[in-house]
Amino acid sequence: MKLWGGRFDKDTDRLMEEFTASIFFDRRLAEEDIAGSMAHCRMLASQGIISPEEAGLILEGLAKIREEIRRGEFTYSAVLEDIHLHVEQRLTEKIGPAGGKLHTARSRNDQVALDMHLYVRKEILAVTSLVATLQQVILEVAGAHLDVIMPGYTHLQRAQPVLFSHHLLAYFWMLARDRERFLDAYKRADWMPLGAGALAGTTFPVDREMVAAELGFARLYENSLDAVSDRDFVAEFLSAAALLMVHLSRFSEDLILWSSSEFAFVTLDDAFTTGSSMMPQKKNPDIPELVRGKAGRVLGSLVAVLTMLKGLPLAYNKDMQEDKEGLFDTVDTLKICLMLYSAMLRTVKINAAQMYAAASGDFASATDLADYLVRQGLPFREAHAVVGRLVGSCVNSGRRLSELTPEELREASPLLGAEALLLLAPEACVAARRARGGTAREAVEEQLKKAREIMEP
Amino acid sequence: MKLWGGRFDKDTDRLMEEFTASIFFDRRLAEEDIAGSMAHCRMLASQGIISPEEAGLILEGLAKIREEIRRGEFTYSAVLEDIHLHVEQRLTEKIGPAGGKLHTARSRNDQVALDMHLYVRKEILAVTSLVATLQQVILEVAGAHLDVIMPGYTHLQRAQPVLFSHHLLAYFWMLARDRERFLDAYKRADWMPLGAGALAGTTFPVDREMVAAELGFARLYENSLDAVSDRDFVAEFLSAAALLMVHLSRFSEDLILWSSSEFAFVTLDDAFTTGSSMMPQKKNPDIPELVRGKAGRVLGSLVAVLTMLKGLPLAYNKDMQEDKEGLFDTVDTLKICLMLYSAMLRTVKINAAQMYAAASGDFASATDLADYLVRQGLPFREAHAVVGRLVGSCVNSGRRLSELTPEELREASPLLGAEALLLLAPEACVAARRARGGTAREAVEEQLKKAREIMEP
Amino acid sequence: MKLWGGRFDKDTDRLMEEFTASIFFDRRLAEEDIAGSMAHCRMLASQGIISPEEAGLILEGLAKIREEIRRGEFTYSAVLEDIHLHVEQRLTEKIGPAGGKLHTARSRNDQVALDMHLYVRKEILAVTSLVATLQQVILEVAGAHLDVIMPGYTHLQRAQPVLFSHHLLAYFWMLARDRERFLDAYKRADWMPLGAGALAGTTFPVDREMVAAELGFARLYENSLDAVSDRDFVAEFLSAAALLMVHLSRFSEDLILWSSSEFAFVTLDDAFTTGSSMMPQKKNPDIPELVRGKAGRVLGSLVAVLTMLKGLPLAYNKDMQEDKEGLFDTVDTLKICLMLYSAMLRTVKINAAQMYAAASGDFASATDLADYLVRQGLPFREAHAVVGRLVGSCVNSGRRLSELTPEELREASPLLGAEALLLLAPEACVAARRARGGTAREAVEEQLKKAREIMEP
Amino acid sequence: MKLWGGRFDKDTDRLMEEFTASIFFDRRLAEEDIAGSMAHCRMLASQGIISPEEAGLILEGLAKIREEIRRGEFTYSAVLEDIHLHVEQRLTEKIGPAGGKLHTARSRNDQVALDMHLYVRKEILAVTSLVATLQQVILEVAGAHLDVIMPGYTHLQRAQPVLFSHHLLAYFWMLARDRERFLDAYKRADWMPLGAGALAGTTFPVDREMVAAELGFARLYENSLDAVSDRDFVAEFLSAAALLMVHLSRFSEDLILWSSSEFAFVTLDDAFTTGSSMMPQKKNPDIPELVRGKAGRVLGSLVAVLTMLKGLPLAYNKDMQEDKEGLFDTVDTLKICLMLYSAMLRTVKINAAQMYAAASGDFASATDLADYLVRQGLPFREAHAVVGRLVGSCVNSGRRLSELTPEELREASPLLGAEALLLLAPEACVAARRARGGTAREAVEEQLKKAREIMEP
Repeated sequence: MKLWGGRFDKDTDRLMEEFTASIFFDRRLAEEDIAGSMAHCRMLASQGIISPEEAGLILEGLAKIREEIRRGEFTYSAVLEDIHLHVEQRLTEKIGPAGGKLHTARSRNDQVALDMHLYVRKEILAVTSLVATLQQVILEVAGAHLDVIMPGYTHLQRAQPVLFSHHLLAYFWMLARDRERFLDAYKRADWMPLGAGALAGTTFPVDREMVAAELGFARLYENSLDAVSDRDFVAEFLSAAALLMVHLSRFSEDLILWSSSEFAFVTLDDAFTTGSSMMPQKKNPDIPELVRGKAGRVLGSLVAVLTMLKGLPLAYNKDMQEDKEGLFDTVDTLKICLMLYSAMLRTVKINAAQMYAAASGDFASATDLADYLVRQGLPFREAHAVVGRLVGSCVNSGRRLSELTPEELREASPLLGAEALLLLAPEACVAARRARGGTAREAVEEQLKKAREIMEP
Repeated sequence: MKLWGGRFDKDTDRLMEEFTASIFFDRRLAEEDIAGSMAHCRMLASQGIISPEEAGLILEGLAKIREEIRRGEFTYSAVLEDIHLHVEQRLTEKIGPAGGKLHTARSRNDQVALDMHLYVRKEILAVTSLVATLQQVILEVAGAHLDVIMPGYTHLQRAQPVLFSHHLLAYFWMLARDRERFLDAYKRADWMPLGAGALAGTTFPVDREMVAAELGFARLYENSLDAVSDRDFVAEFLSAAALLMVHLSRFSEDLILWSSSEFAFVTLDDAFTTGSSMMPQKKNPDIPELVRGKAGRVLGSLVAVLTMLKGLPLAYNKDMQEDKEGLFDTVDTLKICLMLYSAMLRTVKINAAQMYAAASGDFASATDLADYLVRQGLPFREAHAVVGRLVGSCVNSGRRLSELTPEELREASPLLGAEALLLLAPEACVAARRARGGTAREAVEEQLKKAREIMEP
Repeated sequence: MKLWGGRFDKDTDRLMEEFTASIFFDRRLAEEDIAGSMAHCRMLASQGIISPEEAGLILEGLAKIREEIRRGEFTYSAVLEDIHLHVEQRLTEKIGPAGGKLHTARSRNDQVALDMHLYVRKEILAVTSLVATLQQVILEVAGAHLDVIMPGYTHLQRAQPVLFSHHLLAYFWMLARDRERFLDAYKRADWMPLGAGALAGTTFPVDREMVAAELGFARLYENSLDAVSDRDFVAEFLSAAALLMVHLSRFSEDLILWSSSEFAFVTLDDAFTTGSSMMPQKKNPDIPELVRGKAGRVLGSLVAVLTMLKGLPLAYNKDMQEDKEGLFDTVDTLKICLMLYSAMLRTVKINAAQMYAAASGDFASATDLADYLVRQGLPFREAHAVVGRLVGSCVNSGRRLSELTPEELREASPLLGAEALLLLAPEACVAARRARGGTAREAVEEQLKKAREIMEP
Repeated sequence: MKLWGGRFDKDTDRLMEEFTASIFFDRRLAEEDIAGSMAHCRMLASQGIISPEEAGLILEGLAKIREEIRRGEFTYSAVLEDIHLHVEQRLTEKIGPAGGKLHTARSRNDQVALDMHLYVRKEILAVTSLVATLQQVILEVAGAHLDVIMPGYTHLQRAQPVLFSHHLLAYFWMLARDRERFLDAYKRADWMPLGAGALAGTTFPVDREMVAAELGFARLYENSLDAVSDRDFVAEFLSAAALLMVHLSRFSEDLILWSSSEFAFVTLDDAFTTGSSMMPQKKNPDIPELVRGKAGRVLGSLVAVLTMLKGLPLAYNKDMQEDKEGLFDTVDTLKICLMLYSAMLRTVKINAAQMYAAASGDFASATDLADYLVRQGLPFREAHAVVGRLVGSCVNSGRRLSELTPEELREASPLLGAEALLLLAPEACVAARRARGGTAREAVEEQLKKAREIMEP
């Protein structure tokens, strides 16, 4: 019979049992569940709600169960619904009736809320640490290819030459904000719910501050209904995850483009590509592609949780059991994506010559010609128009700007001397953007310095 | 070494292998994969691309592998990436080099597309059959409680009395449209992609019509790039699934409300409820709650697939491997939700007296009073205002409309005779709505008749 | 005072009035509202519920109001909440008390449901007609460039040469399925809700079949609660819209790639690109970019409606007013995207030489070499490995397959004669894929024929 | 001709112009655009890039334009694309060629990024201030009804009696976290992008720190590509908004339930409800319903932006223009929802007697009986089972727990004395939950004190 079966006349339908059981996914919370139970047990003893002997038995039993779980010797079954009942049942098997006292002054509602908070806190630290590793790899790769010039793009059209290191570092800062976001989310995961009971608090003289201190929580939920009813900290984690995945999906798009024959800016290492079962020549950028695809999956999990919570009355509703699988899947997804990204990026081969050639083509330096005219006194809008017409004439005659004759330049504007053509070399364009945050070597070095500073512990 | 490893210098990274492998979820496609391979093999032989002996060996080998899989004796490993390579490798183990010939004239790209089409077709039939069962249960329950009167609600305010059977049947029609939608989706899943090769077709003289006929497909993809690039049939399945779940989530909301002490319109059977680990009196409507929550999950999977596909260039991209897990999870979710709904609904207890009492309270019959005035010649808007004022006066004096005095009625409008009060009985309100689709008993019987007709095969 | 104000003691809060008013967006339903009212009025007269004189007055009044609206002379105000009350109020101004009779036997709940069905039906026809136009443009452009060869891609790696016309036609078929999907959605929009009243039907002897016939509906809602409670037909429209936008977003990605300097496969016409305020040389593919971006917007509207409906009890709830803005926005988005796509595609310039050069590079024909070996008797998997090694050796030595010496070929496999190199020309690769749906000219011509057939009325 | 038309041969297509123009929504950024331009202008002058005279003219011109805009005298047209070009064009009309110098050293890419950051910052402060107001109203209402007892619910089943004030305060803390979340999002909106140019920085010696200081930004974007490419701060705002709306949707569900005849716990003021066009008695909770519905809309906007960003290569792409409408709509939605919620809540009538009656019914105090047994020494699990059986027997005999006889109690457990029944009064249950965060009056008073503290400036 169920632990809660006292008032029931009939057994639960078996399919129903499978449907409502969460053990096959919430077993992932076993460590958190036991850590929370241990803290709860110590508090019960400290408050005299259970005896020191009972507490000793319980703590010893829980430690043994934890060992069984770690060694893979624990058995799971849908009948026992969830990880909480599994642990408690096993405890009673091991230590007898004292096991039944552990659940004093708590409910599964505050217990599962506690487990989830512990889990999210833990995984935020794990994920941010992997983000930091990827940031370090970016710093390494950027530092190692500081002077490589490539075209910068807008609208996927070559826009202006930039340093490859500068382009790469853009992702460093996106990841920096992602990390901040996760750490801000940590603050909301850092509220301690235990003591809320099923929804109204408990009739026992619990010491919630003690539990919080033992488990390292910064704050307590000040309202028992709130403590068991909300999963906003899960949704916030998933929001931060969705944005991180969006950033990685954009990085992936860049890498996929750069790996194409048309761009040929980088070569991914064999270890991080796959082939085709049909086409012997294929070498596919599977990691960036899958990462890009998985951005959808993580967004889906965010939508799932927000939709699930939407419109639920207080306090706990069974719908909220749906807060777990998408979260667990997201944690796994983030971790493997980040690990593989770091490994892949470390081994990527940069094709500097190809990048440089692309930066030299087209009219990526046209802005600099306009800026030159501005410095000669022409209002920007007129300078823009002059250069626009020169570009148009080059396109029609199949030439580059650097192939214009001095006469053509003068004709376009008397302010345009031949020396202006010197500005059109990609190196000159890059070097000219010295202002903070720009792509000139010294600006990028300054940026690298700042980036390294924020990575220091 | 990988089957596609010819051009590679290095081994695949192990983590990368896990990341890109799909075997741990696409093994669910084993039956489809083998059925597709058998049809392909017969066609290759029929076209003289392989010999009859080779075909015989291959077919025999595939049948044995299918048995191994069904008996759970097949072993899976991330190294072999996916179900396609698993089957093929095992085939070669079993029958030697002839096994290598099965992949002639196809690629994993068209092979997986075929498997997915077969799978979606199969599951559409399975899901619609479960929907039909639930519709039948609704017809039974509605038929068994034809005359029970309850309040109909808008804005969760009691609006007008309706038959409980009528309310229940509303879900019948939603499910009918859901079923139609799935069957329409079937038409798009019913295109046969094999023969598209990796993307461009095949150099072998394949007979795609033969494969399609053998597998029962209504149409062929007429464009090889289209055949391997799209997953719109998956997204369409998920759209239909999301709407079905939205309908069930609304049904769930009704059942959860009706199970509350405040409504107390129904009692769910013990077999389909659970208790609380803390509160001994609790009996919770877990099934409707979880179903309502899982509407979010299914919507999340739809968002995931649409976002994954968004912005992908042709043809196949690895991102598309993300089409499976959300689909499989959705199929499982739909099936168990539908099965439990049917079982639960069959055993639900209807509290007719409580429903009737609720329908008698408040002012659920006020519309009928206004309609009465209209029939006496008052324009509807004026009648509405007259009755509105009467309701306001009753609210202020704590009475029902039926407790108004003849004087009060006449004062409100000379057209209001005392006989008008007879219209206020719930039975009268219900009986008066005889027009097609209305809630009068004869209209509901007519509706039931129509509903039973569309359920006939 | 409000039309429904009879029972209220106080005026509505002004901010509240703005919040709940829908007139500023539902005025778009004016034509549908009047058409629905006219049909309702004729039925009321035909059933003797109103007199022929009243009906004549009402119909004349409605026709005049429709003229005012078309001429932009109608005034709107938040006080009158929605289009239904606007029309009715104006009617009463024009024709006096008879105007108040129009609302007999209906409620705003079934009235707005009717308007929405009429609107969705109308817009499905408008959208599918624009889809058909785009399909025609694709047929024209494909027909006009039938023999242009380009690389086909998987994983954005060059995979096998294909005809540009073949690649383009892939989108034709996606759009064909989109059109089918909209037309299937039409069937669910084609149910007639009027007569459902607020939720329970009506006490008047209405003739719902007559209204349906007059408005061209194929079916009637058989359940009044269902008729006013559901918006699945809106969600289904949005699902079809989301998939159409996903298809267009993929087409856009292709066009954006092809417009880049790196690909340079197409040149968009000046009329359909924009420049940069800073970089004089820029010519940006704004249309494909915006279309790709708007795929997110339409998906967002789908999510909004499904989330809104999720968990609502029957029958009508005010939440459902949120069904409109996303729908209207989606209709506008689809229409302008489709119109611009047709116009842009008609004027796109195809750079055949650049496409051909790309198809010749790399190893896009490697599959054909493997297929050749298969025809010589080698199992496919071994052939794949042989060619894979040849590709690897070419990559390392910077050569193409066609530059291998006869000795190298023989060394790789005794079956590899020098004549095999002839297969490597892109023309040969394309021509070899003659099976139905393949990229050979005759297969594409056959495909074009089929495509033209399904476009015939 | 367009400002960027220099290189173009043809005019823009008119429909295309409408499609790509953003002026009809980005005009909302006019104040931000002018504030940013003024800061930019002062910096240009301070750095000697333009002359003090030019700067004076520009600033004066911008101030006048701002006045025109504020007075509604500014005209907008699709031809001029966006607010940036509108302002600049008008400036040149007003002050002549000097107007053209304002765009020196910037691009629309960094300009619009700046405007968006300014806008999001501003609206975060506006929204959090409205959240704070709603929190204050909650404190007032909770304080004014401190002792009202109602049933607390889980699974919408009565679970344990709680104070109404306690239930209400749960929303206070959710809103507190929402406010924190918005303020954390502020930190990411507080990066200054100007100086990034189109993507690579600028060739002019700009002083970005000066611009940042003048506009009150805490940080600078350190990477120009990052500055113009990302919209994560928009997505983060929308995430916080979606969670806030989810919280309000839950509050709404509670209010809608409580306003039903079945619960009848509260009465919404007439000013914040509406009636029915058909049913004279209806009084509908439109505000909570619409707020609940709009949760979907805001989630949709979040999905739209994340999907739009997904997979975009660096740097700016036109897709990103789709970042605005959903954001603006969300800001409007949040503001009106919050304002109406505060107003509505202030006037809600609490039906204390009805709440108390509901809290007395059923078995909401059963947990306390079990806790009593625990204090007598019974392990919790056994106590739970004993009480469960008592509840079951009461359900079967139609009694309350308080109606059990002393014999029945003793029979159930020798530890159960008659005095245990005293614990079953709702007051006793509430008073017993004294631990921090619990529902006892002193705990709630402590909670109120903490809540008031965090509201202090």
